[in-house]
Amino acid sequence: MATVKLWTDAEVDAAPAVKAVFDDIRATRKSDFVNNFWRGLANDPPLLKRTWESLKAVMMVDGALDPLTREMIYIAVSTANSCSYCIHSHTAAARARGMNDAQHAELLAVIGMAGQTNHLVTAMQIPVDEAFLVGG
Amino acid sequence: MATVKLWTDAEVDAAPAVKAVFDDIRATRKSDFVNNFWRGLANDPPLLKRTWESLKAVMMVDGALDPLTREMIYIAVSTANSCSYCIHSHTAAARARGMNDAQHAELLAVIGMAGQTNHLVTAMQIPVDEAFLVGG
Amino acid sequence: MATVKLWTDAEVDAAPAVKAVFDDIRATRKSDFVNNFWRGLANDPPLLKRTWESLKAVMMVDGALDPLTREMIYIAVSTANSCSYCIHSHTAAARARGMNDAQHAELLAVIGMAGQTNHLVTAMQIPVDEAFLVGG
Amino acid sequence: MATVKLWTDAEVDAAPAVKAVFDDIRATRKSDFVNNFWRGLANDPPLLKRTWESLKAVMMVDGALDPLTREMIYIAVSTANSCSYCIHSHTAAARARGMNDAQHAELLAVIGMAGQTNHLVTAMQIPVDEAFLVGG
Amino acid sequence: MATVKLWTDAEVDAAPAVKAVFDDIRATRKSDFVNNFWRGLANDPPLLKRTWESLKAVMMVDGALDPLTREMIYIAVSTANSCSYCIHSHTAAARARGMNDAQHAELLAVIGMAGQTNHLVTAMQIPVDEAFLVGG
Amino acid sequence: MATVKLWTDAEVDAAPAVKAVFDDIRATRKSDFVNNFWRGLANDPPLLKRTWESLKAVMMVDGALDPLTREMIYIAVSTANSCSYCIHSHTAAARARGMNDAQHAELLAVIGMAGQTNHLVTAMQIPVDEAFLVGG
Repeated sequence: MATVKLWTDAEVDAAPAVKAVFDDIRATRKSDFVNNFWRGLANDPPLLKRTWESLKAVMMVDGALDPLTREMIYIAVSTANSCSYCIHSHTAAARARGMNDAQHAELLAVIGMAGQTNHLVTAMQIPVDEAFLVGG
Repeated sequence: MATVKLWTDAEVDAAPAVKAVFDDIRATRKSDFVNNFWRGLANDPPLLKRTWESLKAVMMVDGALDPLTREMIYIAVSTANSCSYCIHSHTAAARARGMNDAQHAELLAVIGMAGQTNHLVTAMQIPVDEAFLVGG
Repeated sequence: MATVKLWTDAEVDAAPAVKAVFDDIRATRKSDFVNNFWRGLANDPPLLKRTWESLKAVMMVDGALDPLTREMIYIAVSTANSCSYCIHSHTAAARARGMNDAQHAELLAVIGMAGQTNHLVTAMQIPVDEAFLVGG
Repeated sequence: MATVKLWTDAEVDAAPAVKAVFDDIRATRKSDFVNNFWRGLANDPPLLKRTWESLKAVMMVDGALDPLTREMIYIAVSTANSCSYCIHSHTAAARARGMNDAQHAELLAVIGMAGQTNHLVTAMQIPVDEAFLVGG
Repeated sequence: MATVKLWTDAEVDAAPAVKAVFDDIRATRKSDFVNNFWRGLANDPPLLKRTWESLKAVMMVDGALDPLTREMIYIAVSTANSCSYCIHSHTAAARARGMNDAQHAELLAVIGMAGQTNHLVTAMQIPVDEAFLVGG
Repeated sequence: MATVKLWTDAEVDAAPAVKAVFDDIRATRKSDFVNNFWRGLANDPPLLKRTWESLKAVMMVDGALDPLTREMIYIAVSTANSCSYCIHSHTAAARARGMNDAQHAELLAVIGMAGQTNHLVTAMQIPVDEAFLVGG
């Protein structure tokens, strides 16, 4: 159970500031389904609006990275942060954007490898090589 | 300073099991430079060998994801794990594989966005939508 | 399910060192309810006693911060550590100490903001400004 | 050293989209000093602008929590995320907003206590009490 | 529910590369039971094989640390990483290797203590004493 | 630089509540050296006293685990929490308690292995096997 109320569609429809964001979520995604994250954020309409607009700007516009790559990066961060909900929702999003089993398997392998070497490096307290500090 | 000895080239050359891995690192990367991570792992030759061979298998073969995408996923995990060395070394690796400023900027934006929503989701303890549990 | 036994009231009553702490928890909180955390710690009576006495000293005395502020700080740490139980129990405690919906919403917004900028700062490896190092 | 360029004032002045944000930072804070975080974000003007505007909306408006409480929550999250820069910058911000030594000491005590019980709870995998799931 | 398919025994038996690893898991552990982790990794046979072989080399050979100590270290890392599954599986493994209640209680106390001082140290940004930097 | 004052010996000597703890640290460890962590905690004498007494109770008494094992568990937690100071100080403590190079190498290998499988398990969201839930 959540620590906040998850808004039903009826509650959303009665709150114009929330409804405006939900309408845009549905229109942008071309789907009636609005997942629980947004139903929790609905308790704070300005936070809901800012978060949705940032997410659109970061994840849903044409950019230098393709949308699937962005979803895989999102999964990587969410895994290291142990955010179960986020892993589920962004794995679903990545699959919706075309991630196949082979790509998913490689994503997992890279995440696991990074997890291992992050821990080894930190336990050894390896100093940064000067070669990595050029440029910046 | 590291919590382990960082092996010099002279020390490596005197230890055949370590030298064999360093030779392969240099040959594979077509560069004489071997960064400190491997000089720390040299204290445990079987761990050095296993880690290098896993890294080659995960990061340096043709696969379903292109090498730059894998490096960006590595940076994402390393950031959430707060591994300073890893962020430096894999940002250098990503740049060596062609990451331009626009791609780096988008990578950072996605990492920041994920950091934010990971925290919001966790603080609200949002339950996973059933729609995300189909398939698996 | 827990990895340790959760002590029932009957078990607690039969163990004087545990019962003494549970009696103090009940008296201090003016409530018969003792939550599962303490029922797990009961397996190690000295740890139970030390933890409860520290918690009282940190969270339940008059001090420089009001009790609600302390609970919100607790939620913030628990979120970044991804401790689901702790988020639930301290959100309940914060509500019991008067946290209203507007305060909860702001707490969430700050936690999310910090999550975002923590990740951005770490990914960019921003050096600490000298201005922040004055004093200490 | 950062993984991105930290913009000098001269570079900022030559880029109108960046300069507009820096001008607002200086005007809002009534100070000429702009810390390195923003000089790193300057590489991505839309991200710079979104992050600054979110930070203003979350941290610098009148709200349900006083500004010092918000800074202490920020420190709590940054500590659990091991973000050294963020701890330094927000401790400075908290002091600028009036945090005294006694308040800082209590903040540290709460953060430490939460760190301890977060780990104990997680290692014991304590199930959430039903009492904490009422409401939401 | 997992984000990947968990392979049944029938599916394993039909895939020789997977079956070879499962056969070795069963033979090494002298048990028919193969836990879900391996059934998830089965989707990527080379990753399955590498992970199992590393795990055997690290956890199941005679070495400088006894097997129970290694399992307790595993639990410690898994707790700080908030990996619920890993805590459950390695607590079971530690018990199977003889961990008694007193040892488990001490393990928890050390994990909790480390959690507390890690947070205190980080919030205070304590500089490393020169005495700790000798040697390496 | 720390975010708090690090107390000099002269300052400690002038504050009886702090001096009493420092005297006990020196007597217990049979060494004049008091590391920076305690010099930072000195700003809050009750926290200093509670932390030292807990540390003694957890790390420095005869118990079910030998002192070196406890130090290695401490390093494991500190690594996963990315606490650089803690890794340095507890690696020094482990070496003082007799940890040799082979034991240190195995500790690192286990920490790295756990880091890898923690990330793999979390990314795959593996459900806990029923076999691991028996007992508790």
